Amino acid sequence: MNTLSVFFIFSLLASLSIALEHDFCVGDLSLPRGPEGYACKDPATVTTDDFVYTGFRGERTTSNIFANNVTLAFADAFPAFNGLGISMARLDFGLGGVIPLHSHRTSEVILIVKGTIIAGFIDSNNIAYYKRLEVGDIMVFPQAMLHFQVNVGETPATAFVSLNGANPGLQLTTLSLFAGNLPGDIAEKITLLSHKEVTRLKRIFGTA
Amino acid sequence: MNTLSVFFIFSLLASLSIALEHDFCVGDLSLPRGPEGYACKDPATVTTDDFVYTGFRGERTTSNIFANNVTLAFADAFPAFNGLGISMARLDFGLGGVIPLHSHRTSEVILIVKGTIIAGFIDSNNIAYYKRLEVGDIMVFPQAMLHFQVNVGETPATAFVSLNGANPGLQLTTLSLFAGNLPGDIAEKITLLSHKEVTRLKRIFGTA
Amino acid sequence: MNTLSVFFIFSLLASLSIALEHDFCVGDLSLPRGPEGYACKDPATVTTDDFVYTGFRGERTTSNIFANNVTLAFADAFPAFNGLGISMARLDFGLGGVIPLHSHRTSEVILIVKGTIIAGFIDSNNIAYYKRLEVGDIMVFPQAMLHFQVNVGETPATAFVSLNGANPGLQLTTLSLFAGNLPGDIAEKITLLSHKEVTRLKRIFGTA
Amino acid sequence: MNTLSVFFIFSLLASLSIALEHDFCVGDLSLPRGPEGYACKDPATVTTDDFVYTGFRGERTTSNIFANNVTLAFADAFPAFNGLGISMARLDFGLGGVIPLHSHRTSEVILIVKGTIIAGFIDSNNIAYYKRLEVGDIMVFPQAMLHFQVNVGETPATAFVSLNGANPGLQLTTLSLFAGNLPGDIAEKITLLSHKEVTRLKRIFGTA
Amino acid sequence: MNTLSVFFIFSLLASLSIALEHDFCVGDLSLPRGPEGYACKDPATVTTDDFVYTGFRGERTTSNIFANNVTLAFADAFPAFNGLGISMARLDFGLGGVIPLHSHRTSEVILIVKGTIIAGFIDSNNIAYYKRLEVGDIMVFPQAMLHFQVNVGETPATAFVSLNGANPGLQLTTLSLFAGNLPGDIAEKITLLSHKEVTRLKRIFGTA
Amino acid sequence: MNTLSVFFIFSLLASLSIALEHDFCVGDLSLPRGPEGYACKDPATVTTDDFVYTGFRGERTTSNIFANNVTLAFADAFPAFNGLGISMARLDFGLGGVIPLHSHRTSEVILIVKGTIIAGFIDSNNIAYYKRLEVGDIMVFPQAMLHFQVNVGETPATAFVSLNGANPGLQLTTLSLFAGNLPGDIAEKITLLSHKEVTRLKRIFGTA
Repeated sequence: MNTLSVFFIFSLLASLSIALEHDFCVGDLSLPRGPEGYACKDPATVTTDDFVYTGFRGERTTSNIFANNVTLAFADAFPAFNGLGISMARLDFGLGGVIPLHSHRTSEVILIVKGTIIAGFIDSNNIAYYKRLEVGDIMVFPQAMLHFQVNVGETPATAFVSLNGANPGLQLTTLSLFAGNLPGDIAEKITLLSHKEVTRLKRIFGTA
Repeated sequence: MNTLSVFFIFSLLASLSIALEHDFCVGDLSLPRGPEGYACKDPATVTTDDFVYTGFRGERTTSNIFANNVTLAFADAFPAFNGLGISMARLDFGLGGVIPLHSHRTSEVILIVKGTIIAGFIDSNNIAYYKRLEVGDIMVFPQAMLHFQVNVGETPATAFVSLNGANPGLQLTTLSLFAGNLPGDIAEKITLLSHKEVTRLKRIFGTA
Repeated sequence: MNTLSVFFIFSLLASLSIALEHDFCVGDLSLPRGPEGYACKDPATVTTDDFVYTGFRGERTTSNIFANNVTLAFADAFPAFNGLGISMARLDFGLGGVIPLHSHRTSEVILIVKGTIIAGFIDSNNIAYYKRLEVGDIMVFPQAMLHFQVNVGETPATAFVSLNGANPGLQLTTLSLFAGNLPGDIAEKITLLSHKEVTRLKRIFGTA
Repeated sequence: MNTLSVFFIFSLLASLSIALEHDFCVGDLSLPRGPEGYACKDPATVTTDDFVYTGFRGERTTSNIFANNVTLAFADAFPAFNGLGISMARLDFGLGGVIPLHSHRTSEVILIVKGTIIAGFIDSNNIAYYKRLEVGDIMVFPQAMLHFQVNVGETPATAFVSLNGANPGLQLTTLSLFAGNLPGDIAEKITLLSHKEVTRLKRIFGTA
Repeated sequence: MNTLSVFFIFSLLASLSIALEHDFCVGDLSLPRGPEGYACKDPATVTTDDFVYTGFRGERTTSNIFANNVTLAFADAFPAFNGLGISMARLDFGLGGVIPLHSHRTSEVILIVKGTIIAGFIDSNNIAYYKRLEVGDIMVFPQAMLHFQVNVGETPATAFVSLNGANPGLQLTTLSLFAGNLPGDIAEKITLLSHKEVTRLKRIFGTA
Repeated sequence: MNTLSVFFIFSLLASLSIALEHDFCVGDLSLPRGPEGYACKDPATVTTDDFVYTGFRGERTTSNIFANNVTLAFADAFPAFNGLGISMARLDFGLGGVIPLHSHRTSEVILIVKGTIIAGFIDSNNIAYYKRLEVGDIMVFPQAMLHFQVNVGETPATAFVSLNGANPGLQLTTLSLFAGNLPGDIAEKITLLSHKEVTRLKRIFGTA
């Protein structure tokens, strides 16, 4: 291999490198974002650490009202997902813990890594598909369908979900109705729930 | 224009016509469908009537429990939409009529053509965006977000919605929970609703 | 419900709210836009009014050369459509009014709300699909196909169209050829129109 | 490398081969097609020849009314393109030859390999972008925009176009209006062309 | 709630159920597939079991030449993924076990559930991003980039990967070059590998 | 045509021009880019020259180690491609010249314009599809599959490739492994290549 050849190789490398910074688009959360996600961090400043998320490590407490703990690794928390159309979340369940009824803009697959849960979704025909899942099992929840998970085992449980969107959204039905600014009388009309029940639930969330 | 030239024009037409049947894909509901919709009806049998839907004509009664009447023109009812990524529905409201809380896989825009309604959606942050709409107004409901419409005028109301999917789905929250096969004890856990309220609602839908 | 539980609920809310501003992307027209649309307005400043467009209200005059009046609610005029892949337009027709031959990047569905029109499109095989539409009828025009509408009733007519793109474009064939900077000699060659006719049309549009 | 290891390698190969027939989807034109293209030919019968198209070889005559010759390699003619979102065409121009005004569902790039042409497109604002192109030059025509090519050199010319769709469609404006079944009176109204000119053009195409 | 109301509710349900079978498209592997995946299994025969995959349960042996074991849950193995744009795989590593250099059509995220591995990918600029990952860590590999995993811990390791495609493909570089029908002399030219090394590797895979 | 009518025509033009700058998005490389490409250059400054690329003109030297010369017209070099999902490259081969094994994020079609080459790709099943191509032949390489070209004729050769992405990426297998920062011991493990061969190749690229 003589000097000249090496020169030509590096000429080749140079001419080929034009498009290279476009392989990924680690999100720069400080810039305005567009419909498809965040603007890209300058590739020259991207390092391996950008592509690794360690926020799922360790134990979780599950002391909230649903006895759960949700760690979202969406593009906001893990900007390497930006533009790549994928994301993850960790779900921890205390005894009897629940991920309440919710939906996303995307499809989702759940993987059980500890414990035993019942997971399910409901389709547009009001058919519920639900099943007891053991460690290693996966179940898919189709795009935008309401779904839920309930710890039915005798131990805490842990699961990981993957979604085919970098920012798939998370809309919790009960919180949508009662934890925000939706007036109680509208909530009643659009759900058939009683005035009394709506009031009870709004009180739980401090919005009555 | 001599005969020879005309001949060549028709040669051109012939050679150009190879791809022409692919401009549309009117659904053939009798064939197996795939992830992106129905197989296409033989283009040789497609006529103008395939592209026109007259099922929105005329008056509607609104005597169900929600005092509404929904006419869906999704790809099942109007197969010309198949593969084109668009669909419509007509919504009629009696006095006090309601389209209860629901979501779709797609985004939606509503157009009011008669009466006065309050329409709104709730985002993932539990913020409800709702407003009184008059004839001619349009409002957009972003993809997969829970939304609703309530007739708040002193007359019946009519609206049309367009959705950017041929089969956008329609998942009604209350019916998902209480009109199908989801067990009441699961419904309680994943919503925080009381046992009594769940039982009352399941009775309404004959599933208690 | 004790204080501690409420605390945990709000912890939950807090941890879940990370991704929430991504449910929509109301366009900020003052920022540079990208291939998929405008950058998003700061979600903290978005209100219900952003999601409602009232520009379709009221009557229209139809005194131009085509006896029509077109009100576009594309993302430029109604920035809430930005990123959601949907848009609308209102079409008003005087007696004999016409929406001349045109096309979009997207598919379109038309809904007749007043009067009687003939609407149609032409496919790549030069087959025209056209039909007389009455109030309540809808017709679909597949993506990128040339289409048109003609008021054939004895009254003015009004229709609304929905398109599955936030900025679907609107290319009017006659104006493309004669109302801009395309030289007349090129226009002749690429259409087979006569020099005389091209000159006549360019005069109508002040470009001869 | 002992026998056992080889066994395990082939076990690996076997277990990995499950998804392998999905790398491509050579169209089987005898089966019903769906919105996204043809069903796939059985991968076991696919050979290298399926991926190569030789129909662009050789010389072309350009004796039709436009003095052109168009060879389309869309998915119908070259089924290997099916599902891959790309296609090509060869354009030959006689002296003064023209590819008349037309559009596609997709974007297109043209490459000049012989002669000198003027190519151009017109945007929604009626601005024509056109330029003289020499051998080796490329020009892009954005999705769905009307465009054209004219041989302005002193020799025949040849160009190749690539489009980012397997079946991008080809809608020739003049032929859409005059070579099919669109009634002349509608053609007049939707173009502002005179009755006389419309009749002249329909006669050229034998439809008057 | 009187009988009449219940009647109307069920009328509503009936009229709304038209589009319901389209929420998912469990693949029917016996039908011809199209570019976007398999045709859908008849929804009337779909049960909860279709949405759950138990093939990841249990222990794995890792005795092949790479000391790995790969269990793919792509749409072929788990047809519920069909059309939903997501899939998974389980990776088991013996001591020193390796998932050799490979790529997919999609992006991928890996989750470590046991052991310690080094995972990495190489971008178009030949920059390798690689890091030691512990239990609970995730790393993303952007679409189509070459990537790999190596067990560097003192115990076996297990990881799960999710990919945003139902049939993301799996192309192993070394096997592509040496385990199939690619002639050795071509392999040499397109890699710069020596004749001797190519022959050695083809012998390992029994293709020399 | 009186003055008033002309006024109305231009009113029409004005009202229709709202969306017009969105027909294209010529990349502004000085602004931050997003996942879908560069932000758009101000349409008011766009001219015909933006849509034409002349960098493929002229002769090429092919004196590098692969006896090739690659001219990429990706969005970086030809910003008009930005957002349009298409791009091109010119490939020149000296005698025995080679485009070594590589892949892209997209599909590709190659057109031979001079000489005789063998082109081929390898699928996930390790099946190589390769063939001798003559002038005028095209061959398609499906998305993300490894592929290559070798000049097997007695003259230099030239080809053009089109890809259905504005920034399709270009990952050269040998350079990925040996021309960057991937440690040699990892390269060995993930390829089965010998220590000696890895060292030899790293020396060629100056990274040993």
